[in-house]
Amino acid sequence: MKANNRHYRTIWATADDEVVEIIDQRWLPHRFETEQIATYSEMATAIRDMHIRGAGAIGAAAGFGMYLAVVSSSESSVEETIEQAAAELKASRPTAINLEWAVDRQLRALALGDTLHEKKEIAFHQAQAIADEDVEACRRIGEHGLKLIQAVAKTKQGGRVNILTHCNAGWLAFVDYGTATAPIYAAHDVGIDVHVWVDETRPRNQGARLTAWELGQHGVPHTVIADNTGGHLMQHGMVDLVIVGSDRTSVTGFVTNKIGTYLKALAAKDNGIPFYVALPSTTFDWTMRDGLAESPIEERHGDEVRYASGLLDGDIRSVLLTPEDSRSVNFGFDVTPPHLVTGLITERGVILPNETDIRNAYPENG
Amino acid sequence: MKANNRHYRTIWATADDEVVEIIDQRWLPHRFETEQIATYSEMATAIRDMHIRGAGAIGAAAGFGMYLAVVSSSESSVEETIEQAAAELKASRPTAINLEWAVDRQLRALALGDTLHEKKEIAFHQAQAIADEDVEACRRIGEHGLKLIQAVAKTKQGGRVNILTHCNAGWLAFVDYGTATAPIYAAHDVGIDVHVWVDETRPRNQGARLTAWELGQHGVPHTVIADNTGGHLMQHGMVDLVIVGSDRTSVTGFVTNKIGTYLKALAAKDNGIPFYVALPSTTFDWTMRDGLAESPIEERHGDEVRYASGLLDGDIRSVLLTPEDSRSVNFGFDVTPPHLVTGLITERGVILPNETDIRNAYPENG
Repeated sequence: MKANNRHYRTIWATADDEVVEIIDQRWLPHRFETEQIATYSEMATAIRDMHIRGAGAIGAAAGFGMYLAVVSSSESSVEETIEQAAAELKASRPTAINLEWAVDRQLRALALGDTLHEKKEIAFHQAQAIADEDVEACRRIGEHGLKLIQAVAKTKQGGRVNILTHCNAGWLAFVDYGTATAPIYAAHDVGIDVHVWVDETRPRNQGARLTAWELGQHGVPHTVIADNTGGHLMQHGMVDLVIVGSDRTSVTGFVTNKIGTYLKALAAKDNGIPFYVALPSTTFDWTMRDGLAESPIEERHGDEVRYASGLLDGDIRSVLLTPEDSRSVNFGFDVTPPHLVTGLITERGVILPNETDIRNAYPENG
Repeated sequence: MKANNRHYRTIWATADDEVVEIIDQRWLPHRFETEQIATYSEMATAIRDMHIRGAGAIGAAAGFGMYLAVVSSSESSVEETIEQAAAELKASRPTAINLEWAVDRQLRALALGDTLHEKKEIAFHQAQAIADEDVEACRRIGEHGLKLIQAVAKTKQGGRVNILTHCNAGWLAFVDYGTATAPIYAAHDVGIDVHVWVDETRPRNQGARLTAWELGQHGVPHTVIADNTGGHLMQHGMVDLVIVGSDRTSVTGFVTNKIGTYLKALAAKDNGIPFYVALPSTTFDWTMRDGLAESPIEERHGDEVRYASGLLDGDIRSVLLTPEDSRSVNFGFDVTPPHLVTGLITERGVILPNETDIRNAYPENG
């Protein structure tokens, strides 16, 4: 997508340079910076400290991280380095399944390479393929989701379509297009008058910082709201549909996504508003059945709640919100049960959040 | 309640000084300051700009504001000044009904005074009575709510009781004790192991700033959480009951309270967790039937969402969270329908949120 009128992916590399470049999301929306990553450990740090975040983007980052592990190895150390890199990258963030999926894919592919040279070629090819497939999946999610928005636009007879989204499941969270935002960009591009309610998404404000910035760069009308606001908007007919992303979706349709998603799903249900989850197949957990009991939920440092970061006098600064001695906890995700989900917008179309329909759409996963 | 180990109300005055003093809540939790208010216009500003806020506290502030109007009048100007003050104070914040209730009570009482001297005495007496009655109502709410917490504590066999609250319905929001917090302080004081999940309550963070500070001053264990977190906690058995306040409760049981309350009520219902609203009778709107359609909802400046304020290098500073050119909207309240409310904790006991039970508890409003 466009940033400062130039096309970017969130992560890219050339086989010659043996270095990976990412958009460093920590400074957005106030500064647009990229970062060069030269080792798998740097990549693990970039994932853990959220220089790059979002289900698809950290999947791609893990793929490229495995490439960097091979690149920095000698013939004698490569097996051990691959093993270390796989463990470190998988441990960098626990909730989004795309990360372990990408690492496992690299491991399976690398097992087929005999020499260090072969492994380098395999690792680069796989990393590139993971990124390219993510882009293509998101593009298709946009096409399928567009039909849903067109249907709503029809019922509104040309009136504005109001979509609420939570966190950032935009192109910054993937390699390009995004999931929740892909249908929105597609609708905007075909001339539908679409407006987005952007949940600020405390504590890290991925909505206020990233989704708002993305939408602004693409010229999509949007309004940032406190996370508390969505229920009121829905009660008063100001939301036509909700589209969010997912970090892990069980084969039975439980959706693990940014903390607070469940509250919006409840409000959508209570007000008869369609609640869609947009995700590529890499986000399905084919072994998880009871998402509420089984989904790993990352707990991050409480200081992300105690402080808020933003622009002040040209610098990005943090202010303390709470009393000095008040503690806080910071769960990163929650789980929305399938009965609150209208449909899953996947690269293979819109499917119902139940095991039969999910397995039918992806027969190759058994 | 205690602040820095001294007993305070949120607002107080002496008849001799002809000035009213309030705790200026804008600087909490980082600085404890009081402010002297000498005119009704200053009081209207203090209410509008939230030096003092919360249903009961702004009711009391309006009562004292009317006293200041009389104090600053001459015999010839007093009628006109009273009329102007009533209009200005009522308009200062639209949602909490306590404000217009207090002004109307002063107007009725002042009509019985003949001379300026009489009116001064009446106005001071009424303002003091409004404050004293608020204190007594909150104290009783604490007694009635304590029984609910004791019942939960019994089922947990001495285990910790976890209570979630939203915004600040603490003593800072009233004259003393608070509503939602009164049962919590009472439980803590009788030795129940009570712990409070404090919603930070964006955009103005009354939870993170005020409730956390209050609880800390009283020694009540508490944890500040992002507003997005409550649903996850409830899904995982980490909340035993929810207690919130109200700014206006319809005679039919619709509860207007800080934006985001409705989302927590939905989550409590979905997880079978009791959801109580604590309020004195001054918060009932005896003429409102359909709270969703009829309740006035204050819309404040969008910059409260675009920025966050807190402590930085010893000063209270604001940081910009969103892109410079992203707009935002800022609805201050939402409405929770009665079917999501387990009970109303009033000064006359715990009653069900329906017209029959509410009218039976307050036959004088009949």
